[in-house]
Amino acid sequence: MITGLDHIAVAVPDLEKAVKRFLEDFGLSYDGTEDVETAKTSTAFFPIESASIELVSPLRGEGPIAKYLEKKPGGLHHLCFSTDDIVADVARLKTLGYQFITDEPSLGAHNCQVIFIHPKSCDGVLIELSQPGDDHH
Amino acid sequence: MITGLDHIAVAVPDLEKAVKRFLEDFGLSYDGTEDVETAKTSTAFFPIESASIELVSPLRGEGPIAKYLEKKPGGLHHLCFSTDDIVADVARLKTLGYQFITDEPSLGAHNCQVIFIHPKSCDGVLIELSQPGDDHH
Repeated sequence: MITGLDHIAVAVPDLEKAVKRFLEDFGLSYDGTEDVETAKTSTAFFPIESASIELVSPLRGEGPIAKYLEKKPGGLHHLCFSTDDIVADVARLKTLGYQFITDEPSLGAHNCQVIFIHPKSCDGVLIELSQPGDDHH
Repeated sequence: MITGLDHIAVAVPDLEKAVKRFLEDFGLSYDGTEDVETAKTSTAFFPIESASIELVSPLRGEGPIAKYLEKKPGGLHHLCFSTDDIVADVARLKTLGYQFITDEPSLGAHNCQVIFIHPKSCDGVLIELSQPGDDHH
């Protein structure tokens, strides 16, 4: 029986640089690195607490997911980190050289404030930051 | 401050079909769907327990991640579900029409038995199944 999600794998060209990013810039816990000879990979582990998998599809055939699906059959689209102060985190990450897709956060699911870091700032991975709104359930 | 992972977003062309897959075939809990007008998406939520983010890079410039990085700067590579009986789950999913990249599970990180479902069976998403080995920490 499938018992849950074990991990989300992110392919990175430079492991040391990526570990630094997820540990220092994004503030995750780091649980070490293992060389997996059978898979010919070196893998760094970052345990996470409860989260969710969100399946996203276009609303009325419009929007960014519709555009994405013009080129692909579907796929892993982005990771979203929660923050308790999105304005401060955007300012901090901008100082570190991160580029954002929009200048300001906007309203996302569950009435959250959300903003996206440009994939070119994260080795091709689209990263969202999200701050819960007042009526977050 | 970034406080953790909020979600992993998976773009899907047919939300109803994808919800059925993640709920019935993969056995996740389903927490409803929300139309997000500002993002022009319809989004289905599947809460998950603790998991990890794994940054994977090529070992000695070889292997599947090296091949992946020839075409991309990096990116979200796959989701891995844990299972307590990988042989039974592979048999069950094969009966449902899922195709696998290899015939048999092989040894992965942490001494787990792992196998990959072909992305064409999951709307372009690469899915790994993993059963912990005896010395899983």
